[in-house]
Amino acid sequence: MATLYVVGIGPGSEGGMTLEARAALKRADVLCGYGVYLDLIAPLFPEKERFSTPMRGELERCRRALALAQEGRCVALVCSGDAGVYGMASPILELLPAYPGAEVEIVPGVTAALSGAALLGAPLGHDFCVISLSDLLTPWALIEKRLRAAGEGDFNLALYNPASHRRRDYLRRAADILLAYRGGDTPCGIAQNIGRAGQAARVLTLCELRDAECDMFSTVFIGSSQTKGIDGRMVTPRGYTR
Amino acid sequence: MATLYVVGIGPGSEGGMTLEARAALKRADVLCGYGVYLDLIAPLFPEKERFSTPMRGELERCRRALALAQEGRCVALVCSGDAGVYGMASPILELLPAYPGAEVEIVPGVTAALSGAALLGAPLGHDFCVISLSDLLTPWALIEKRLRAAGEGDFNLALYNPASHRRRDYLRRAADILLAYRGGDTPCGIAQNIGRAGQAARVLTLCELRDAECDMFSTVFIGSSQTKGIDGRMVTPRGYTR
Repeated sequence: MATLYVVGIGPGSEGGMTLEARAALKRADVLCGYGVYLDLIAPLFPEKERFSTPMRGELERCRRALALAQEGRCVALVCSGDAGVYGMASPILELLPAYPGAEVEIVPGVTAALSGAALLGAPLGHDFCVISLSDLLTPWALIEKRLRAAGEGDFNLALYNPASHRRRDYLRRAADILLAYRGGDTPCGIAQNIGRAGQAARVLTLCELRDAECDMFSTVFIGSSQTKGIDGRMVTPRGYTR
Repeated sequence: MATLYVVGIGPGSEGGMTLEARAALKRADVLCGYGVYLDLIAPLFPEKERFSTPMRGELERCRRALALAQEGRCVALVCSGDAGVYGMASPILELLPAYPGAEVEIVPGVTAALSGAALLGAPLGHDFCVISLSDLLTPWALIEKRLRAAGEGDFNLALYNPASHRRRDYLRRAADILLAYRGGDTPCGIAQNIGRAGQAARVLTLCELRDAECDMFSTVFIGSSQTKGIDGRMVTPRGYTR
């Protein structure tokens, strides 16, 4: 019996959650997470004890969750999207050996690459890469190397954290790197506020993406050489219709 | 109001399905899909009309689903994992312009890269690639190019369709390509029959992966230079604990 569930809640609405994720949240005595994500699900469980830590308080959040689990409480650590993709599963499992007795179960969820793709059409219908443009924990040189490798391999791309106040031109830099490998008319897409108020999706070209406005709640998709625009949707063929 | 839902049901058990996916299946008059996946969910909806087509009958399945939707029936086309990742969303959207009046909604689901990762630990905690080793619809030269690019970019990898009766040595070929870029002791993982009878997960090294037995119901994970084995789990740090 797990004492700490690391739960991917999907994009944010109850409908985007798996039944197992909802069951884990129900079983938990304590819910914890980043404030914005915790607020998305808190109305479903108004009676539960909960705590949050701000952005950059991730390790403190993980340590408190593990300490509670070690005391025998049942804790759910809430992650937006999936528990593992840029989520808390990896720091929790790195810290776990210091908390003997705490048991951890990872409950996967629909990450933004999938929920955003569904809004846009089928941009990830063939091999793809997922890259975060945030250089908070990753040197920009490595991000750039991965963007080049994705270009080289003609992968479809899903880009997380495409922009923030501090990183206004990162999406432009990424688009410029991909423009060395594929045409300016390559179909691209932006999904915003997936499953939440203000949900929006739009298809545009790689040239247009250079100058597109994005925020922290956006996921960006860049097509491969095979990706097509079909009636306003972005579609990467699997090859069946060839 | 959509007339055709393309539904990712997750790994196969009801618990791995999102609430929206289950609601779409409930709303449908007709369920269709590949036999194995349809059988996974058919017991939940015994009263529904359904049809399946065998492997390689994908286009016929899509055309029948679209024709029914065009007649005004509410159809759910069931996909294992996600609707878009190697799923039916892309052929459906390619064919859709030939079926005026049919409306399509894509309902995302937890793809095997995420559900398999959760069983193994957190192998996809940083940037990753998803590549299918099936050369049924993709030339092997392109698959190889993408494996090299993934090696070059130090990506974590999730490999779909790692083996079949016809393609016994493809996983070995993939491991050999990655061995040119990373050490033989790189943590790797195999997840089998995720969310179904016979579910299993094991962590092994890239050298051991060369000779590992896999089947069609396996998903393979290859770590990056940063991936660690921690207490039998496979963990790729996000960077918080650095």
